[in-house]
Amino acid sequence: MVIIGGGFAGLNLARKLDKGLWDVTIVDRNNFHSFPPLFYQVASSGLEPASISFPFRRELLSRKYRGCRYHIGDVRTIDVSAHTVHTQYETLHYDTLVLAAGSTNNFFGIPELEKHVYTLKSTSEAIRCRNEVLDRLERASLCKDPARKRRLLTFVVIGGGPAGVEIAGALGEFKRFTLKREYPSLEQSDMRVILVEGTDRLLAAMSAKSSADALEGLSQLMVDVRLGKQMKSYDGTTVVFADGTTEESDTVVWTAGVTGVPFELKGTDVKPGPGARWLVDEYNSVEGIDDMYAIGDIALMITDKYPKGHPQVAQVALQQAANLARNLSEPRKEPRTFEYRDKGSMATIGRNRAVVDMGKMHMSGRPAWFAWLVVHLLTLLGMRNRAVVFINWMWSYFTFSAGLRILIRPGRFPLRKYWDE
Amino acid sequence: MVIIGGGFAGLNLARKLDKGLWDVTIVDRNNFHSFPPLFYQVASSGLEPASISFPFRRELLSRKYRGCRYHIGDVRTIDVSAHTVHTQYETLHYDTLVLAAGSTNNFFGIPELEKHVYTLKSTSEAIRCRNEVLDRLERASLCKDPARKRRLLTFVVIGGGPAGVEIAGALGEFKRFTLKREYPSLEQSDMRVILVEGTDRLLAAMSAKSSADALEGLSQLMVDVRLGKQMKSYDGTTVVFADGTTEESDTVVWTAGVTGVPFELKGTDVKPGPGARWLVDEYNSVEGIDDMYAIGDIALMITDKYPKGHPQVAQVALQQAANLARNLSEPRKEPRTFEYRDKGSMATIGRNRAVVDMGKMHMSGRPAWFAWLVVHLLTLLGMRNRAVVFINWMWSYFTFSAGLRILIRPGRFPLRKYWDE
Repeated sequence: MVIIGGGFAGLNLARKLDKGLWDVTIVDRNNFHSFPPLFYQVASSGLEPASISFPFRRELLSRKYRGCRYHIGDVRTIDVSAHTVHTQYETLHYDTLVLAAGSTNNFFGIPELEKHVYTLKSTSEAIRCRNEVLDRLERASLCKDPARKRRLLTFVVIGGGPAGVEIAGALGEFKRFTLKREYPSLEQSDMRVILVEGTDRLLAAMSAKSSADALEGLSQLMVDVRLGKQMKSYDGTTVVFADGTTEESDTVVWTAGVTGVPFELKGTDVKPGPGARWLVDEYNSVEGIDDMYAIGDIALMITDKYPKGHPQVAQVALQQAANLARNLSEPRKEPRTFEYRDKGSMATIGRNRAVVDMGKMHMSGRPAWFAWLVVHLLTLLGMRNRAVVFINWMWSYFTFSAGLRILIRPGRFPLRKYWDE
Repeated sequence: MVIIGGGFAGLNLARKLDKGLWDVTIVDRNNFHSFPPLFYQVASSGLEPASISFPFRRELLSRKYRGCRYHIGDVRTIDVSAHTVHTQYETLHYDTLVLAAGSTNNFFGIPELEKHVYTLKSTSEAIRCRNEVLDRLERASLCKDPARKRRLLTFVVIGGGPAGVEIAGALGEFKRFTLKREYPSLEQSDMRVILVEGTDRLLAAMSAKSSADALEGLSQLMVDVRLGKQMKSYDGTTVVFADGTTEESDTVVWTAGVTGVPFELKGTDVKPGPGARWLVDEYNSVEGIDDMYAIGDIALMITDKYPKGHPQVAQVALQQAANLARNLSEPRKEPRTFEYRDKGSMATIGRNRAVVDMGKMHMSGRPAWFAWLVVHLLTLLGMRNRAVVFINWMWSYFTFSAGLRILIRPGRFPLRKYWDE
């Protein structure tokens, strides 16, 4: 079996499959498993990328994965009739293929947008966002032209989902607690954090109470939240909204949409459905293609309860992987259909504040923030990572400052070609 | 006063100067102070860059630095007659200028060398080296062409000083303890680590006993040490030595020489001396230029004991900074000439092994390694960094594996211009 992608879905499948029955190869473009819920903390200098990354080769040493192999590679083409996948390095044959490649940014066809905005869908995107934010602050502190300074210090976050709320909260926390102290040449009022959401509330997937709490929390962190507003275009300098208003900003963080990671498919006419997600049946088998499954963000399973497919979150990925592993590991038993058990959702808003929805229960403020900390610490892979994250969080909490504000510029060297293509 | 560079020399000067007398601005191209003795651990995936980096703005909050300012910028031009320095962002006026910009790689004019080798003189160079080494290992594990595989797995380190010995030791440790376990498709004998030194011994600045110990330690880590051998050229594929022999390698780490960071100088005919170091008197005042001092790696103070200048090490930088701070802070007293007190030197060779020279005392093996750990932990800035480094070291020690082997590719995005030029 070849699993494309070692995220929550792919890695959990590899772990739970019966390795006596299945010979498993994970193909991933990165040599490490990462933890997307905390990308925003990398982007806001709160955590080091390595703290939320776990090298596959290290993880696969564990007994639970005995026999699993890892291959580096970006799968570009899948040949369904030949049963092969093609990366920039090799061609791999499969008997069974599992698509678990997840999702990436959706720019909805807005021209040039990809070139100008910063995104948070991978470790390297988060690092880049961190560097750009730090660059703006340093340059602003030297800038003598008021208009230019204002543009440098205007941070626009597009999208009011968890990622948008969390990065806006982290930027707001910086403005509220750190800016004046560490950048004596800047005024707090010089920096603006603007969160733009197209619908009429933040965290649309959560309860109305959570939305209201998030809005209040962000206001306290001096974030200017603009609901019911949509971005039309951005050229690197001017954000134009659908209602004709504009903002001058050098830094736009885009969290407003995701789409399935694309592949070129050969030997079939089947194409992915809405959101570039692959239509699957209730066993996560891809409709119309033999020996191919899809799990996690990239799968689209339409059920009565989820007529538009399940939410693209870690819980669904983990549970689909577990269900598929069970069905494939016990071939003599009746296969079990996938049933999503929603364990709840949560988001932080700066320090000391979070919102948690679990069924009908709602938590907010400090207890929710504490619950958020515990859940995220426990779900991180590896004791070393947990210890380092814990230290960094304690440090930030008591110093009111993110400790890892280091601006490391890429591209100062002639870049060698990484790919063989 | 303007201090160019916030390394050991510049930051220590800022700290010890009397800020009642001096108005201090540190200009540095990076927004953080870094710890070069551990760059090799970043390059070998043992530590995260942030663990050995300390943001200036955070450090300058401390009472010891009260009133010091930080400006980001790469100083390109110094106008001695106008008393100004020019970065890509601004022009700064100075009354007194201190050059503390340190040293960078010296490629001795070997054509194209800079394009093809990896270096360890800054955080970003170390990260790049880490990524390239990980890339070679992953690609080798997929490679079916034996010649190509051999080239991918041949790591050549040029220069047998501390940096060369330490990175070769770390690569050797990987070969000896990690490779077979984590890369099942590779054989230990597939990987070669070659350390090339032009003179007849390693660690030439240390005692003969340390040299011998280092050689033995590296042999145990399966490093192929070649003494009395000089590299002539490298085109990205073939290393050619002065004796006409060659090695095929995709990865050459260059630690064989340093040179002072260059500036364009206006308003004077004075030029830097050998090694691009600025000739200074015994008070670190630059010869022939008013109101200008140089300290640390970039200064060349010729004394009876050091006819070729002091070694370019952290101890000299720290002590010159302290002496200059004392002279400038107590203008009524007789200025004190600089006298280097050599506190000894040390280098690690993989796990459990190091060499330490202190005066006539020599230590090696595990006690030396332990001394090395303690000294480096204590000299790191900041409790958070110390705690995180300690955890990572313990983890590596007990797991026989560097935990941070994450390959993060830069350049997957359109790079925005960082500089204003």
